[in-house]
Amino acid sequence: MGILLRNVRLLGHDASLYTVRIDGERITAVSRASVPPTAEDDVIDGDAKLALPGFVNAHTHLPMVLMRGLADDVPLEEWLEDYVWPLERKLTPEDVYWGTLLALAEALRGGTVAVADMYFHTDQVARAVEESGMRSVLSYGIIARSMSDGGERELRVTETLAAKWHGAAQGRIAVAVSPHSTYTCGEDVWRACRGLAKERGLGIHTHLSESREEVARVRERTGDSPPQYLERLGVLEVPTVAAHCVHVDEADLALLARRGVVVAHCPKSNAKLGNGLAPIHAMRARGVRVALGTDGAASNNRLDMIEELRAAWLLARGPSEDPRALSAGEAISMATDEGRAGLGLPPAHLKVGDVADVVLLRLDAPHTTPAGDAVSTLAFSSQSSDVTDVFVGGRPLMRKGRLLTIDEERVQSEVVRLLRRHTN
Amino acid sequence: MGILLRNVRLLGHDASLYTVRIDGERITAVSRASVPPTAEDDVIDGDAKLALPGFVNAHTHLPMVLMRGLADDVPLEEWLEDYVWPLERKLTPEDVYWGTLLALAEALRGGTVAVADMYFHTDQVARAVEESGMRSVLSYGIIARSMSDGGERELRVTETLAAKWHGAAQGRIAVAVSPHSTYTCGEDVWRACRGLAKERGLGIHTHLSESREEVARVRERTGDSPPQYLERLGVLEVPTVAAHCVHVDEADLALLARRGVVVAHCPKSNAKLGNGLAPIHAMRARGVRVALGTDGAASNNRLDMIEELRAAWLLARGPSEDPRALSAGEAISMATDEGRAGLGLPPAHLKVGDVADVVLLRLDAPHTTPAGDAVSTLAFSSQSSDVTDVFVGGRPLMRKGRLLTIDEERVQSEVVRLLRRHTN
Repeated sequence: MGILLRNVRLLGHDASLYTVRIDGERITAVSRASVPPTAEDDVIDGDAKLALPGFVNAHTHLPMVLMRGLADDVPLEEWLEDYVWPLERKLTPEDVYWGTLLALAEALRGGTVAVADMYFHTDQVARAVEESGMRSVLSYGIIARSMSDGGERELRVTETLAAKWHGAAQGRIAVAVSPHSTYTCGEDVWRACRGLAKERGLGIHTHLSESREEVARVRERTGDSPPQYLERLGVLEVPTVAAHCVHVDEADLALLARRGVVVAHCPKSNAKLGNGLAPIHAMRARGVRVALGTDGAASNNRLDMIEELRAAWLLARGPSEDPRALSAGEAISMATDEGRAGLGLPPAHLKVGDVADVVLLRLDAPHTTPAGDAVSTLAFSSQSSDVTDVFVGGRPLMRKGRLLTIDEERVQSEVVRLLRRHTN
Repeated sequence: MGILLRNVRLLGHDASLYTVRIDGERITAVSRASVPPTAEDDVIDGDAKLALPGFVNAHTHLPMVLMRGLADDVPLEEWLEDYVWPLERKLTPEDVYWGTLLALAEALRGGTVAVADMYFHTDQVARAVEESGMRSVLSYGIIARSMSDGGERELRVTETLAAKWHGAAQGRIAVAVSPHSTYTCGEDVWRACRGLAKERGLGIHTHLSESREEVARVRERTGDSPPQYLERLGVLEVPTVAAHCVHVDEADLALLARRGVVVAHCPKSNAKLGNGLAPIHAMRARGVRVALGTDGAASNNRLDMIEELRAAWLLARGPSEDPRALSAGEAISMATDEGRAGLGLPPAHLKVGDVADVVLLRLDAPHTTPAGDAVSTLAFSSQSSDVTDVFVGGRPLMRKGRLLTIDEERVQSEVVRLLRRHTN
């Protein structure tokens, strides 16, 4: 039994209507001609919607939806210490599970098929991701001054997580090693993380050069910039997703390019917390791969990849006064292809043989009329509520605007209840 | 017969549920207690949605939705000369009518209740606005090197427009005088516009200091900055909405504040066309009133005030690295109160006696959970598709997601047809 998607436009193709056939996890036919269904096929009329391979959120902390709108106007350090961490200390594993499901509901509704998450109680994040049917690279955020001062314990959490979840859910879930940042992990902790990642064949997912303070502190302590510091420790030999990279210089960019580090650009979070603007034009020009992430909802306040790519576009153009900075196609590529590369997912371009990660987006709303150029329409006119259907590895997770794997009503009421418990 | 809106949260109030009574054009009761309906009342259950007074788009060119996505990556001058103007020369009055309706459908769906529009075939813009039930200050964009070289004719268009439409549609429509800009209108044309505005009691709506080129040219020709130039011609004595004001200095800001000019900040358009970032923090600190506009959809590509206020927020914070720049409440005020001031509309704060411009926005989606602080939720988490109902002057224009005054399907098919005619 396969799926026959009829009458869809394909992102990156002409405006013709195509038929896409999905068997199991993969796309098995793409044709402008009509493809005859077999008796058991699920035939779906695409109503001239746009099919795209779905978005990849390359850096987030899913359960932080629980802190959405908690403190909108404070700088990074104060925000973490006075607002985020106090609430996080109260969160139970069960709270993290419900928070993750709430986040995944929002992400799915906006056409996201895969996320790179870093949090704690990661078992529960994994449980929620598995249920949702989405793809994810999960990690536990390691915070330890030294191996003897908590580091041993922190790394064991990741080891246990990897043993249980790396490659789980039919390969939809992978585990990464996440030393949280240069300012929260000591040197031997970083070295041990590198060792663990190499030994187990895991990637690294970290925060890097997010704030001016971080860069100044690392320079003062080590004489190096944060990327140079990680390079000296051998960390960048491991496939790495580095979130933020706001304050990087030419030498940093050359290093990130040479090591194939995928930067997870988080324009909204960086703007909201006052960290600044990552130089993505220079990054891309120097050959650095740049994916896109929302960061946690507490510093965004959305997990909406269309909104995020539009923010990346505006923040690339406004301050630079360059009307050619970041085209629609480049912004979409950051939100799709580059994210897949960062998460170690195979490319997906709606071609025969590609994994069937497919999102349908309606183009018939007033705000997407006229929709002559699908790339421009998707990047600059569409909104997350235009997404109607999501398939991951051929499995339908949303059909006609209804989530099939997440009980939204239940999730929302659980979240409201748990927040009442923690804030009263 | 009145309208009884039950179980709504009110923007700017606590999280309690209120009942709002509307009789005719005005709000006649606001109460936390239950208000008994009379037999003829239309009773609406607000389902704990958020009621807000609706957004004001303080600068747009509605029919430019016809050029949505036409050329996304070119600077202002090239964009106008090579793309926009060639298509505009082909537009018939009927085309402008359908384009306006398409734009108003999008605007209404996003909770916009009033727009300041500048275009041509303005009779047809007015016809569409009247049908839609929305509020508008309309104008004809005057372009003339001198009074003898087209200026006389251009001003007569505005005179005729004002005679027919100023105060029309039960006062929902006003007419402004719109000399297009300092670089498209000669000095005697500006003087004549000022005279006409004063004589007829009309406001002025213009583009001001949008690009570096404009400022340089005006300085070279006159020795003045564009605002100083208009002041010298007496123009700023007239109530003025000045779109953009990207490149303004301290003296300009003092002048704009002293004259009570309302700046229509268009952050997305300014970013997209590479014109830069208006210094709204400095403006507001100097006492300049700053409203918010989308500009035309061709340079946006949306007419979505929630997206616009979020862009204003991000562009205020990112480049400045100030996590306190533009709070949620300030951004909303730009999109509502300041816009009303610019359009000469009475304030609307959902109080007894206020005109019943009321928008309902659902707060129960995953992306708006938790929704403890309605101001933060509206500004930073909601999206235009959360708007379910729009009332203007007590008249329902959208109910439960359905437009009552615009036949969207018809409008969209007319637009697709007319574009095919012009581009084939």
